[in-house]
Amino acid sequence: MYSFVNDYSETAHPAVLQALVDTNMEQSAGYGADEHCENAKNYIRQKIHCPTADVHFLSGGTQTNILAAAAFLRPVEAIISAETGHIYGHECGSIEESGHKILAEQTPDGKLTVAHLEHARLLNQEEYCPVPKMVYISNSTELGTVYNKAELQELYAYCKAHDMIFFIDGARMGSALACTDLSFEDYPQLCDAFYIGGTKNGAFMGEAMVIVKEELKQDFRRHMKQRGAMLAKGKVLGVQFEALFKENLFMELANHANHCMDILREGIGELGYDFLCESPSNQIFPIFPVEVLERLNQKYAVLDYQDMGDGKRCVRMVTSWATLEEQCHNFVADLKAYSK
Amino acid sequence: MYSFVNDYSETAHPAVLQALVDTNMEQSAGYGADEHCENAKNYIRQKIHCPTADVHFLSGGTQTNILAAAAFLRPVEAIISAETGHIYGHECGSIEESGHKILAEQTPDGKLTVAHLEHARLLNQEEYCPVPKMVYISNSTELGTVYNKAELQELYAYCKAHDMIFFIDGARMGSALACTDLSFEDYPQLCDAFYIGGTKNGAFMGEAMVIVKEELKQDFRRHMKQRGAMLAKGKVLGVQFEALFKENLFMELANHANHCMDILREGIGELGYDFLCESPSNQIFPIFPVEVLERLNQKYAVLDYQDMGDGKRCVRMVTSWATLEEQCHNFVADLKAYSK
Amino acid sequence: MYSFVNDYSETAHPAVLQALVDTNMEQSAGYGADEHCENAKNYIRQKIHCPTADVHFLSGGTQTNILAAAAFLRPVEAIISAETGHIYGHECGSIEESGHKILAEQTPDGKLTVAHLEHARLLNQEEYCPVPKMVYISNSTELGTVYNKAELQELYAYCKAHDMIFFIDGARMGSALACTDLSFEDYPQLCDAFYIGGTKNGAFMGEAMVIVKEELKQDFRRHMKQRGAMLAKGKVLGVQFEALFKENLFMELANHANHCMDILREGIGELGYDFLCESPSNQIFPIFPVEVLERLNQKYAVLDYQDMGDGKRCVRMVTSWATLEEQCHNFVADLKAYSK
Amino acid sequence: MYSFVNDYSETAHPAVLQALVDTNMEQSAGYGADEHCENAKNYIRQKIHCPTADVHFLSGGTQTNILAAAAFLRPVEAIISAETGHIYGHECGSIEESGHKILAEQTPDGKLTVAHLEHARLLNQEEYCPVPKMVYISNSTELGTVYNKAELQELYAYCKAHDMIFFIDGARMGSALACTDLSFEDYPQLCDAFYIGGTKNGAFMGEAMVIVKEELKQDFRRHMKQRGAMLAKGKVLGVQFEALFKENLFMELANHANHCMDILREGIGELGYDFLCESPSNQIFPIFPVEVLERLNQKYAVLDYQDMGDGKRCVRMVTSWATLEEQCHNFVADLKAYSK
Repeated sequence: MYSFVNDYSETAHPAVLQALVDTNMEQSAGYGADEHCENAKNYIRQKIHCPTADVHFLSGGTQTNILAAAAFLRPVEAIISAETGHIYGHECGSIEESGHKILAEQTPDGKLTVAHLEHARLLNQEEYCPVPKMVYISNSTELGTVYNKAELQELYAYCKAHDMIFFIDGARMGSALACTDLSFEDYPQLCDAFYIGGTKNGAFMGEAMVIVKEELKQDFRRHMKQRGAMLAKGKVLGVQFEALFKENLFMELANHANHCMDILREGIGELGYDFLCESPSNQIFPIFPVEVLERLNQKYAVLDYQDMGDGKRCVRMVTSWATLEEQCHNFVADLKAYSK
Repeated sequence: MYSFVNDYSETAHPAVLQALVDTNMEQSAGYGADEHCENAKNYIRQKIHCPTADVHFLSGGTQTNILAAAAFLRPVEAIISAETGHIYGHECGSIEESGHKILAEQTPDGKLTVAHLEHARLLNQEEYCPVPKMVYISNSTELGTVYNKAELQELYAYCKAHDMIFFIDGARMGSALACTDLSFEDYPQLCDAFYIGGTKNGAFMGEAMVIVKEELKQDFRRHMKQRGAMLAKGKVLGVQFEALFKENLFMELANHANHCMDILREGIGELGYDFLCESPSNQIFPIFPVEVLERLNQKYAVLDYQDMGDGKRCVRMVTSWATLEEQCHNFVADLKAYSK
Repeated sequence: MYSFVNDYSETAHPAVLQALVDTNMEQSAGYGADEHCENAKNYIRQKIHCPTADVHFLSGGTQTNILAAAAFLRPVEAIISAETGHIYGHECGSIEESGHKILAEQTPDGKLTVAHLEHARLLNQEEYCPVPKMVYISNSTELGTVYNKAELQELYAYCKAHDMIFFIDGARMGSALACTDLSFEDYPQLCDAFYIGGTKNGAFMGEAMVIVKEELKQDFRRHMKQRGAMLAKGKVLGVQFEALFKENLFMELANHANHCMDILREGIGELGYDFLCESPSNQIFPIFPVEVLERLNQKYAVLDYQDMGDGKRCVRMVTSWATLEEQCHNFVADLKAYSK
Repeated sequence: MYSFVNDYSETAHPAVLQALVDTNMEQSAGYGADEHCENAKNYIRQKIHCPTADVHFLSGGTQTNILAAAAFLRPVEAIISAETGHIYGHECGSIEESGHKILAEQTPDGKLTVAHLEHARLLNQEEYCPVPKMVYISNSTELGTVYNKAELQELYAYCKAHDMIFFIDGARMGSALACTDLSFEDYPQLCDAFYIGGTKNGAFMGEAMVIVKEELKQDFRRHMKQRGAMLAKGKVLGVQFEALFKENLFMELANHANHCMDILREGIGELGYDFLCESPSNQIFPIFPVEVLERLNQKYAVLDYQDMGDGKRCVRMVTSWATLEEQCHNFVADLKAYSK
């Protein structure tokens, strides 16, 4: 059985793990005050062309999103998100637990537009409504779709015009970079804060929160400590990001994931199957007849996503740095065989 | 420079790291639903002789303490702790952030007694006071002191008599087990929930929350998810605890830490130096003249703890699984030389 | 200018105010421990035929709803509500601030059905979703519609079958009682907790929270204190509810409000105007051509609710214990004149 | 039985109640947007010589204190208070529920000094401590003691030097003004925000929060709404403060309370009894032999405060706008008789 269920099945890229082995017996300062964290922060600041950015290493995406809400917002301030946004439906009410309402907008493809922001803002003008203060998007999105540069510019311009914070969840930022006109150095120009996802791109865990906007930087490490997000051995995060960003490993891994997905997407498409939506990144949502799916399921694990009626189901397939290219070809070949 | 500053300077015991390397490319279920987590839970349940306990793996002590407060308590319920308790002075107000007041009791040695519980309980009888509902202790404590079996029995009896939850922070549980009459299988008899600290005893991170009391078990994984405490690759925690508990590694490492500290404690004591309090575990708080300390500081890093007046300072010294026995002997020899 | 904007424009029914004057110089115990609160609680317990209910007097509806969430729920537990529910769109994110997600269901008429509960429950089965634990409805609803006895029975049966708490917001409970087959003594049989709204039915402020289910009663007064909801002079709430419930004043006032609304509803309907939905209580949402509305607005204040297109607007009109019957007739007469 | 137990036994000064009666049937805008609130705000702004202050009417002291914490502070920010401060021991953990730690300082008389602020600040320098950001005092204090102008100036200077917010709880501000060198117009010069207590000085409920510092003003009404602190009939608060501040009623009532207390304090003192501390305001804490107290208790209610040993107890006695001067003389005469 080979799994295309998600991009966090394997532990870590061997080079990342080796870096951990190599530094194992060093006596380091605790809580991320070590040289590996410092190096990794500098590599990232160089990569994004933003020497003034604050960089903080965290353990996971939900934790990072909670911290954005907790550190950036006051109690009456709310977050605009797509209804498919990870914070709305997949984080167990963590944002609400931190005291903030999510103003969820329905979208066809998981992407917010200026029209959504305007809708949410106008709906919450009255004093008995929370203040729409932060816009949350994921790039790539939970549906595998991506925002390009022009789209992010438009959203950010709207945010600035209406005194909103623009925050980008980059759990799958690598994959987005690998299939759009965006590059690392664009991000500090396109939002107030974002995170670079390591967990889904080579690290065994780790997200790098990057805070660009000056007003959002204050006391962030205390917020981390207060939410239980500061590891005693912060070094283990620094070492991983050092390995990913010292040279070009991060993007090599993202390119590999996307390349594998291209094989799947094209192969499936050529056999005439539809997709829930068009997604150029490392996630796709193809629609298969139940009989075909049952045969596939004997050799490949995929995530059951949605009943489409008429004996068809939509599934989610994901590739990663660890995906075996050969298995992608195998899948397409098998699908072709089952489709006859 | 050799560091006795804390017990989290080095990354992980080589056997723990090797286990991670060995399982690296396995495709595992996410969020701790993998077989390594399952194995590790079973090893722990066997070790504590409690097949019905719920075991959850978390990333750090503050996170674990927050979850105990969040999952076990209702908003009006408060926690009794020593004023030196980690949750009171070292976690950036995280318990208060989660909505709960800490009723801090002053102690000479970091240990709560029934008299403290009675004091806190009687002080909070009125309707305008929160309900003292949980008792928090650390064993070993933040001052290196330890509770023995009879002391824990007495505290737990009081808790049960007054409908309080008894929770033991085991960040340094290994060291306590290695120097008291307590054994693993006593813990489920002595409290409602506790955690086994991995970060300070061989893991690069990881605490195992053990919930004994039935009523406290409900929805704990959702609480974890909600607080950002559920790792996508939960496997990395399971693999580590598997390595620590499959056989006897956990206690071997704790014994080593205590053995190293015995060398330091006895050597320092024989030279006639006082300690802030008597502590049999892997933390000591010796008091040195400033001149002596300055010379020590050229070769050894220790944590400056408190000015004692009269040109003397109290420092904290900590040993761990990684401490080099030779360096302990070196320290004593150097101290002897400086003390002439 | 005569206002039909809401049912809280005037201060208090004269008999209620007189009770306050009559008891003004009594020296009473603070925080609701006085005899007037005690009397009022007993009157209510008698009226609802439930001697074991806990009754607490609060200052307003939002405060009462916050307390229901805070006292009844644990952090990971969520509330199912209609999207038009007061807690979802009109309380500034107060429920989310208290840490709980609202699972909002779309309805045509502001009323939840078992199908909605089932939908919300099934959508939140996964561990990364909060637990749907409380069902919130208002009766009468925010759209003036009402639940009858059979409907409440069905909802409550579903709640009990799925271990959910059923809570009824009774900000306009008087008006609902006055136009359905429900009576006071039905309520304890139909839900776990509810509140009786005084602010909109004769009191200058005051809601009586009634907790029927035993498990929900614990520490409620401490929750009140903790949320700033316990008045030093709790007596002012007790005195008002004493006046409202000693005899039959509460229902007399509700009947008056509904009677006045009957005049408006029938008059408007006979002139051929449509309503947003059918509402038998003291709120209606008629739809007028803009030209007619502009003329009405010169003499009557109503709440602009929604643009209906085609030059028509929907407005909200509300009557209360204080509404002058004559003004209702005037309105109908004027509308008739403007409609020609 | 005559009660000196507290200053909230009677309902409201007759003139305040009459104002409510006089305005009863007016149709007013809801939520404090009425003309009475507007008038009352202007009267207060004039009285304090601060036309730019924001004034908000709230229902009680605990609610007001919660709002100060919730609206003024970010999650990692803590409040410095005397251990006797109302927020620390008498509000059921409400500040902690709102997410903020209280850094409690021990004092002999309930009054903070710069030395206390410095102590708390230095104790919380580390990253694992919350940021001491707000200083909370009550004037008069919970022990009846008062701060004079020079003392407040010194505290405020310290706050400004260390970027802290200075907030004064004025539940008994009237009594403090009536026995110090402070006047209304001093307050905006001496702190960032304060509240004027109505509940204990003539109103049946109501506190006027006054926000002086510009940065603290934002969205305060939304915070009120979110915490359930915005009354539908906000008018009932405006009408009361209008009555208290239109002319000089507020200070007349405070002067009366203090005058009555002067009779008690002097009479008790002349009979040779000690007090817990010297308190010039409307609260005293005399110490009586148990036998004397038992006889007093047959005619007068006082609050039992503390066992002093040696057969003596300390009690709290409070006077208010409603206290009968004659009863004060009676008390002293009876005490004299019992003391022989």
